[in-house]
Amino acid sequence: MANAEQQIGELARRFLPEIERCLREAVEAGGELAPMLRYHMGWETLEGTPTRGGGKALRPILCLAACEMSGGDWRDALPAASALELIHNFSLAHDDIQDGDETRRGTPTLWRIWGVPTALTAGNAMRVIADRTAGALTAQGATSDVARATVAELTRRYMEMIEGQYLDLSFETAEQVSVNDYLDMIGRKTGALLESAMHMGALVATGDHATAQGFGECGMRMGVAFQVRDDYLGVWGDPAFTGKPVGADIRRKKKSLPAVYLFESTPPEERSWLEETYRAEEIDGERLEGVMAMLERLGGDTYVQRIAEEQARLAVAAVEALAIPEESKRLLGSMAEFFVTRDM
Amino acid sequence: MANAEQQIGELARRFLPEIERCLREAVEAGGELAPMLRYHMGWETLEGTPTRGGGKALRPILCLAACEMSGGDWRDALPAASALELIHNFSLAHDDIQDGDETRRGTPTLWRIWGVPTALTAGNAMRVIADRTAGALTAQGATSDVARATVAELTRRYMEMIEGQYLDLSFETAEQVSVNDYLDMIGRKTGALLESAMHMGALVATGDHATAQGFGECGMRMGVAFQVRDDYLGVWGDPAFTGKPVGADIRRKKKSLPAVYLFESTPPEERSWLEETYRAEEIDGERLEGVMAMLERLGGDTYVQRIAEEQARLAVAAVEALAIPEESKRLLGSMAEFFVTRDM
Repeated sequence: MANAEQQIGELARRFLPEIERCLREAVEAGGELAPMLRYHMGWETLEGTPTRGGGKALRPILCLAACEMSGGDWRDALPAASALELIHNFSLAHDDIQDGDETRRGTPTLWRIWGVPTALTAGNAMRVIADRTAGALTAQGATSDVARATVAELTRRYMEMIEGQYLDLSFETAEQVSVNDYLDMIGRKTGALLESAMHMGALVATGDHATAQGFGECGMRMGVAFQVRDDYLGVWGDPAFTGKPVGADIRRKKKSLPAVYLFESTPPEERSWLEETYRAEEIDGERLEGVMAMLERLGGDTYVQRIAEEQARLAVAAVEALAIPEESKRLLGSMAEFFVTRDM
Repeated sequence: MANAEQQIGELARRFLPEIERCLREAVEAGGELAPMLRYHMGWETLEGTPTRGGGKALRPILCLAACEMSGGDWRDALPAASALELIHNFSLAHDDIQDGDETRRGTPTLWRIWGVPTALTAGNAMRVIADRTAGALTAQGATSDVARATVAELTRRYMEMIEGQYLDLSFETAEQVSVNDYLDMIGRKTGALLESAMHMGALVATGDHATAQGFGECGMRMGVAFQVRDDYLGVWGDPAFTGKPVGADIRRKKKSLPAVYLFESTPPEERSWLEETYRAEEIDGERLEGVMAMLERLGGDTYVQRIAEEQARLAVAAVEALAIPEESKRLLGSMAEFFVTRDM
């Protein structure tokens, strides 16, 4: 495990300086909005003082790693990788508005400072900058056919992400959401951009659609595995690692996989109690203990973890048949394992 | 005048069926969100019953007209034209959220029905659909160099539009906005997409950047002229045509050109009265009469109309040197004149 963490750390050390250089160059195209965007990226304080910040850049790292693993020069995939990180940040800006979240990475969110209308516009600007960045693919050595296919892939998966966001919102008011509905939703909401990350990396490297599809499938499964492990940690995570109380996602009635499973599996005689519990503003005290006990009785923790591991296995299986070095397959395997065993 | 209206009507009759076909095909790619998008486009009621609706499609018509005037087959510019209309509709969906507008074309706005988070997502979906549509340019006969330059032009002007929206929002809280600041803002907010419309149309037709730039400049000026005439009508329009009371934009304290001019030109001794007036929720009764009288004394109506006409002249001048038929130049001239003399 420590091994996978070290390997990802090593990739990050090699790739991050170049990713950040591309991102900074891209954000400057934001003109009037650039200061707001730099703040949102976590690079600057409100006063414009540089910070040691920024996200984990998971998507661009996976994109460049897929490029390298399939035999390419990772630098050729930099525009695709940067575009992904910008799209991710665009969607965070809009997510914060939609969820009413007041802080991100410990600082006030865009809408909290500049108001919803301006934050919405800043998010849109981030999205255009992503387009411009992806448009630089041809300048980076990709032939124009490959560049076109790469941009088309990004657009397709981005649309899927939006559909996933829409489904997620519609679940809030849905009568009943099945585990399958839920997995389909996160496959789009979280999986699609990771799918696109690895697909584009491999496509830029090889120009071969079958290879790209294998990597893409791997990325999508990794994304779902990552999210399901997140859902697991949101309920059963160790507060010492997660920084959240036990049962955090149950408390705030988050409809993540544990709750979806609970509603799907609760026996009829306990259903009305459960529904009543979920009508409260927050679930606390005895009610919280009751829900946690129900989940335990139904084997919820084992069930959720099993789904995460199943997706991790499918991620690895997706690249099994590809003609890439065994070492690359092993690295992907240990990444996937790390995703579903991490404690934070 | 009637002549220009007739000519525009004739273009609309020829182009609109194809534009609508493209738009409908594009919107179907919205998957889960397609019904919401069809409603937003004005094609369907909430229950999914077809309506006789939809916008004026000014941007796509100008795009196809520019393509034809510069010697191309207007059908080649259909993807660019449709992408513009979709971007316009994306921005309307977000505008309605930002302005808190509850109706559009007489029906409730997206956010009013589905809530802000879902409407925001629907707007983003419309934007992706626009990208996909623009991406179809190569399939429509444009060489890949021209297609790339066309998409780059769209992205550039779209970014300008967003900057314009940002400036417009920032003006709401600004101490002082000059006429120049204001014209710069609408040049981006309204002008940029019209610039892009005519630029792309000419570029698809000719592949020639100088011709495209001339048309683009013409489009931008037309956009500003159109908006400034809108500002004029918002204050001095005939209620019988505009459907709004006299001084409508003064009543609701809209910072359009008349108000910007007023604040810039009011003599110091009347300034505090004006500022106090603009601190009220709404301007009504004697205060409204007072503001209208000040504007008259300062020649506000003549000033605003003169700026609209000046921009219309610059629009025509921008294509003067181009090697296009005299008839095309005459048509653009009468369009520009129509834009600044229309009553509604």
